[in-house]
Amino acid sequence: MQLRWNTAGEAHGRFYVAVIEGIPAGLRLDESDIDLQLERRRTPYGRGPRMRQREDRAAILAGTLEGVTIGSPVAVQIGETGGAYSPSVTEKFTIPRPGHADLAGAYKYATDDLRLVWERASARETAARVAVGAVCLRLLKELGIVIDSFTLAVGDVSFEPPADLAPPFEMPGDGARCPDPVADRRMREAIDQANAEGDSLGGRCRAVAHGMPAGIGSFAQWDLRLDARIAAAMMSIPSVKGVQIGRAELGAASRGSAFHDAIEMVAGRPAPAGNRAGGIEGGLTTGRPVEIDLLVKPVPTLGNPLQSVDLATGEQAEAPRLRSDICVVPAVGVIAEAMLALELSRAVLEQLGADRLETLKARMEAFRNEAPGTRPVTSK
Amino acid sequence: MQLRWNTAGEAHGRFYVAVIEGIPAGLRLDESDIDLQLERRRTPYGRGPRMRQREDRAAILAGTLEGVTIGSPVAVQIGETGGAYSPSVTEKFTIPRPGHADLAGAYKYATDDLRLVWERASARETAARVAVGAVCLRLLKELGIVIDSFTLAVGDVSFEPPADLAPPFEMPGDGARCPDPVADRRMREAIDQANAEGDSLGGRCRAVAHGMPAGIGSFAQWDLRLDARIAAAMMSIPSVKGVQIGRAELGAASRGSAFHDAIEMVAGRPAPAGNRAGGIEGGLTTGRPVEIDLLVKPVPTLGNPLQSVDLATGEQAEAPRLRSDICVVPAVGVIAEAMLALELSRAVLEQLGADRLETLKARMEAFRNEAPGTRPVTSK
Amino acid sequence: MQLRWNTAGEAHGRFYVAVIEGIPAGLRLDESDIDLQLERRRTPYGRGPRMRQREDRAAILAGTLEGVTIGSPVAVQIGETGGAYSPSVTEKFTIPRPGHADLAGAYKYATDDLRLVWERASARETAARVAVGAVCLRLLKELGIVIDSFTLAVGDVSFEPPADLAPPFEMPGDGARCPDPVADRRMREAIDQANAEGDSLGGRCRAVAHGMPAGIGSFAQWDLRLDARIAAAMMSIPSVKGVQIGRAELGAASRGSAFHDAIEMVAGRPAPAGNRAGGIEGGLTTGRPVEIDLLVKPVPTLGNPLQSVDLATGEQAEAPRLRSDICVVPAVGVIAEAMLALELSRAVLEQLGADRLETLKARMEAFRNEAPGTRPVTSK
Amino acid sequence: MQLRWNTAGEAHGRFYVAVIEGIPAGLRLDESDIDLQLERRRTPYGRGPRMRQREDRAAILAGTLEGVTIGSPVAVQIGETGGAYSPSVTEKFTIPRPGHADLAGAYKYATDDLRLVWERASARETAARVAVGAVCLRLLKELGIVIDSFTLAVGDVSFEPPADLAPPFEMPGDGARCPDPVADRRMREAIDQANAEGDSLGGRCRAVAHGMPAGIGSFAQWDLRLDARIAAAMMSIPSVKGVQIGRAELGAASRGSAFHDAIEMVAGRPAPAGNRAGGIEGGLTTGRPVEIDLLVKPVPTLGNPLQSVDLATGEQAEAPRLRSDICVVPAVGVIAEAMLALELSRAVLEQLGADRLETLKARMEAFRNEAPGTRPVTSK
Repeated sequence: MQLRWNTAGEAHGRFYVAVIEGIPAGLRLDESDIDLQLERRRTPYGRGPRMRQREDRAAILAGTLEGVTIGSPVAVQIGETGGAYSPSVTEKFTIPRPGHADLAGAYKYATDDLRLVWERASARETAARVAVGAVCLRLLKELGIVIDSFTLAVGDVSFEPPADLAPPFEMPGDGARCPDPVADRRMREAIDQANAEGDSLGGRCRAVAHGMPAGIGSFAQWDLRLDARIAAAMMSIPSVKGVQIGRAELGAASRGSAFHDAIEMVAGRPAPAGNRAGGIEGGLTTGRPVEIDLLVKPVPTLGNPLQSVDLATGEQAEAPRLRSDICVVPAVGVIAEAMLALELSRAVLEQLGADRLETLKARMEAFRNEAPGTRPVTSK
Repeated sequence: MQLRWNTAGEAHGRFYVAVIEGIPAGLRLDESDIDLQLERRRTPYGRGPRMRQREDRAAILAGTLEGVTIGSPVAVQIGETGGAYSPSVTEKFTIPRPGHADLAGAYKYATDDLRLVWERASARETAARVAVGAVCLRLLKELGIVIDSFTLAVGDVSFEPPADLAPPFEMPGDGARCPDPVADRRMREAIDQANAEGDSLGGRCRAVAHGMPAGIGSFAQWDLRLDARIAAAMMSIPSVKGVQIGRAELGAASRGSAFHDAIEMVAGRPAPAGNRAGGIEGGLTTGRPVEIDLLVKPVPTLGNPLQSVDLATGEQAEAPRLRSDICVVPAVGVIAEAMLALELSRAVLEQLGADRLETLKARMEAFRNEAPGTRPVTSK
Repeated sequence: MQLRWNTAGEAHGRFYVAVIEGIPAGLRLDESDIDLQLERRRTPYGRGPRMRQREDRAAILAGTLEGVTIGSPVAVQIGETGGAYSPSVTEKFTIPRPGHADLAGAYKYATDDLRLVWERASARETAARVAVGAVCLRLLKELGIVIDSFTLAVGDVSFEPPADLAPPFEMPGDGARCPDPVADRRMREAIDQANAEGDSLGGRCRAVAHGMPAGIGSFAQWDLRLDARIAAAMMSIPSVKGVQIGRAELGAASRGSAFHDAIEMVAGRPAPAGNRAGGIEGGLTTGRPVEIDLLVKPVPTLGNPLQSVDLATGEQAEAPRLRSDICVVPAVGVIAEAMLALELSRAVLEQLGADRLETLKARMEAFRNEAPGTRPVTSK
Repeated sequence: MQLRWNTAGEAHGRFYVAVIEGIPAGLRLDESDIDLQLERRRTPYGRGPRMRQREDRAAILAGTLEGVTIGSPVAVQIGETGGAYSPSVTEKFTIPRPGHADLAGAYKYATDDLRLVWERASARETAARVAVGAVCLRLLKELGIVIDSFTLAVGDVSFEPPADLAPPFEMPGDGARCPDPVADRRMREAIDQANAEGDSLGGRCRAVAHGMPAGIGSFAQWDLRLDARIAAAMMSIPSVKGVQIGRAELGAASRGSAFHDAIEMVAGRPAPAGNRAGGIEGGLTTGRPVEIDLLVKPVPTLGNPLQSVDLATGEQAEAPRLRSDICVVPAVGVIAEAMLALELSRAVLEQLGADRLETLKARMEAFRNEAPGTRPVTSK
């Protein structure tokens, strides 16, 4: 079945809502599955005090019966503990914040009331994505596919993951989400220092999916390619300016002989010997872990604000001083997991169909066991 | 109107075909407009001898009347001069080439007849994309939008573009497509040397769109964001493993105060002072040039082939020695122009509508002239 | 912008939720606009006692600021006065009701727990459609387009509308929704009699849109045709088994000379002299009222139940005796208005684009004033 | 996989082109499969002399290897025997034909050059649909699903099909496509008489699919319902003004007790006892034949032309006297088969997935054998 999903909601609105269609019947799903992911998104190091206070809670409005999906759209509402958020932005803002959609949105809507822009363009919306992503994480887990993420760099502090690093990655949820404790500490220190100086930091993170069988995806049409879809999903995350599959920067600087993974027999089946390709070749999974790196820009709202212009007067003005995050890289990793889960689920469901989870699991099992060398193109 | 497009065709088939829907009526369109782009794609340095021989020619099968579009789908067929290609692959190949879709496709189709995979997964298909992209380049030109591209790096030879570099970029079509003659020569030398050693090279290129007004795109839903769509379009190009909008690597390593473009009055209108954002913020154009960098992996088919496995026997084997390109980076730039033209046209048409070119031009003119600070949200 | 919408929710779930994307910024929208339409759907004659008790209330969860849309998705939640519905179906049903999706759904999900089927297949879901339709009715009204509906037949009691009947149709909201008081009374009597005999009734209704300009829609691709889209929207309403545009039955039995509307000058512009075409020719609006007739089957849940089979035992059994409606034709008219409003809005927005209502109104005004005979295909 | 398809081409263009994506690998496909359907569309009684002369021939441009599909898009080109059509309309027409898209299109494009409208709005385009439909007919046949059609009425001559009528329907391809020879003769006579009087005729036809298993389709979202999709596909056929599933007119005039099909055990499995529902309930197949009736308006181009207006002058004028068909009802049946095949294939592929035909066949076999009463909602 076709997986489709969308979100609604604004930064200072009553609720965020997310609807996901195409989840097979028979999947156990609790609000705690979603709350867990919301918590992982909310608490990493680098978040500002506002985010730490605002405790998101999921309510499943539709799509389950006695805690199990029934094939109908799953709707999730996200509010604060105890109900709706408290909408509070009652006055118009007319000074666009550099590095945000504010100014571009002012042109789009021909307005100087920037609430029209930042209310929906706010990265708060990713809470709703994480909610539907949590549903897909549950689904993939039933199929033997596990997704996790970690921080590769915060500003100029970087971490080179060892070759055998595999999920689940062990690290505290309120740190910088780097599996190396020393690097994690240095990242946190860099965040502290930027904060102290009224500044912010960019960085890099990696989302990884283990357990995807080879041959999921398509090259039949440009927009069906799994790499293209993952790129869109990742680039749609606010603050993300770059997406890489596997060791893209290495590849761009390499010769073919030094970069491409040779093919060899692994456990009786042909497989890439390495994974510089990041688990995807030609729009298809290779059977190796899917590895996606994101390049995240620094948070643009700063303690020492950047220069801007007041749209109401045309005069130079300082961007508003709002409480904000210092570095969102660790949190973006969690959001990237959600987006990866959504796209991998979509690809799996297109290829295997299935109205109910048991059928899907049986088809996945059969697909995993098919050998590439045994069948002719056509039966006759 | 909704812009949609697709392609059909195989590497050793009779024709490639591309269909594009949503082009307004009234656009002058000749086959020479398309042939010009096909030629730009085919002739850059780094192409192998096979590509240089195979002269693509476009035939517009449908969608125009007396050389002008009439609002119906435009269908383009691409064959060799004089008609169809000569299909020639009559025997089954069973040794997957590392770095290609071959092995993953063998799993997808549970087959050892790799023609099922490489016929459609072949990068030859990008000729069809360039054909429909050429239609959009024509359309955008009517709206004052110009797209071009250049090579940033070939292997370890890189080029740092000066800040004032603007299209059209001056460079010969059969070089490495780098605007700096010295760098271009060094890139060609690197290609020659890799070729001499039976090897290949990756690199980087940049596609640039000048003349986009601020406020095109959307942040209303994740899949409507212009950055997400461009990322998908670019990552769908074979060999591309990374996509960056603006100075993404710089941003990932920076503090916010050092990265974000302040806002100032430019020619009487508020605008970003710089363009590290690459012309897109929050899913919308900023009015600055749209700049997209692609990370391209080295061509995987090598003169000194990589190790693989014969699917028919399970034995180790050398990947097939096929004539191939040495470095596709310069050509990928041309393909990226087509993809960028397609996505920018799609966004413009969604926002401005219009059944005929004249109406579209009038609406674009009005949109360009709207000021961000003059209107309330609603009239009453 | 692209109009998209979906719903979630189940008959005995907590809430129905509907999300609509693509509504321009600047539209005033109150929950009372939606409640009014929900009430019109709920109260017509023929509804059973259950429906009359269940008072739906809309809550706008997202998409507006100070009562005005801001271009972001509008999310509406529908529950009972005072909050959520009271979910109550805790036991499994295993006897499929004839005339419902029950048995087919049992095969789809390979289950005998029919709650998987009827929870989502229930016509209660149309409340959520009416909610998003209400948003579009508001939008169209701003563009001078008015939609209404009436009942053409209940069982064998039919009403022949006079040629000059135009919306708004005058009739009480709790009758059979027939503009002729005598026919309305006879329809109510037929419903009463069917009810008394433990039976139900089918019928026909017509949805009409006044004020659509000529030339909205497309024939460029099969799925863009306005008639095709309206047909899908209407046939998707539960109980609808037939859709007709204009006088389709007359046309099927006629000669061309007797059926087709000649073209003549009307108020200085060429127009069809009549409207047997129902306002649409070749996938486009003609400028005459859009008239869509629906053929509605009788409610399948009967006081004297039909014969069925218990899936748990394979034994013959009587379908469950549930409280139900007697005749939904008058209510289907209201739902059809919503579906028509959604599809007409979608077509208008595709053709005219526009991020804000004022721009949309200006473009619509310009479109209405363009003459068909003044321009060449292309400007050069 | 997702089935998508589109067409390009104009009535007086060089070629029609159709592209279909999502056909599994491994389906044998010859141009003769397509030519057969093109012939069936072209030759029924009621066609005018122009159509009878214009012999369409299919050329498969892409998508097959050695006569077998490989999972890539299938592109078909339709021209006359020997190559392209001979484009010939070199002068502008300014008098819109009543009953066509001409006038509405003139408003859409703000033009008096009606070639912009009728070139693409022409029913000639259905040849391209029949071509892609032929691919789906082949696919469905492999799955045990057979589609056929017949004429129900031509003007006031109607045919009441006996209850046991099942495909393949026996009738000559150049008659009126009515399985009853007497009725067929009377239909042909009616056509002859209309022709003699410079007039045309409407009518009704039915498309039938045998062999669809129960439970294909969806009620999870309005636009996924199989009835909605079929309605769109059918209403998109030029001249079709009404679509009915099963005995819709009977249902609209009936009581529930007299209309709905009871459920009983048939060959050990619960099934509807009759088929007044036309094989679809609640958006799903019931396992009974899918029966779709189309209401077709009379051909609007008449020997004795209708009155119109010259857009260039605003003066009253006679519609152009073009050679045309007299009655397209028999041909519409063939086109309806193609559209039905496309939508049924789409629904089957969404539900069963599958990259190759053999896998699809195995999954269909398993789906057919699943019993509705044996499984709980979830496995735990």
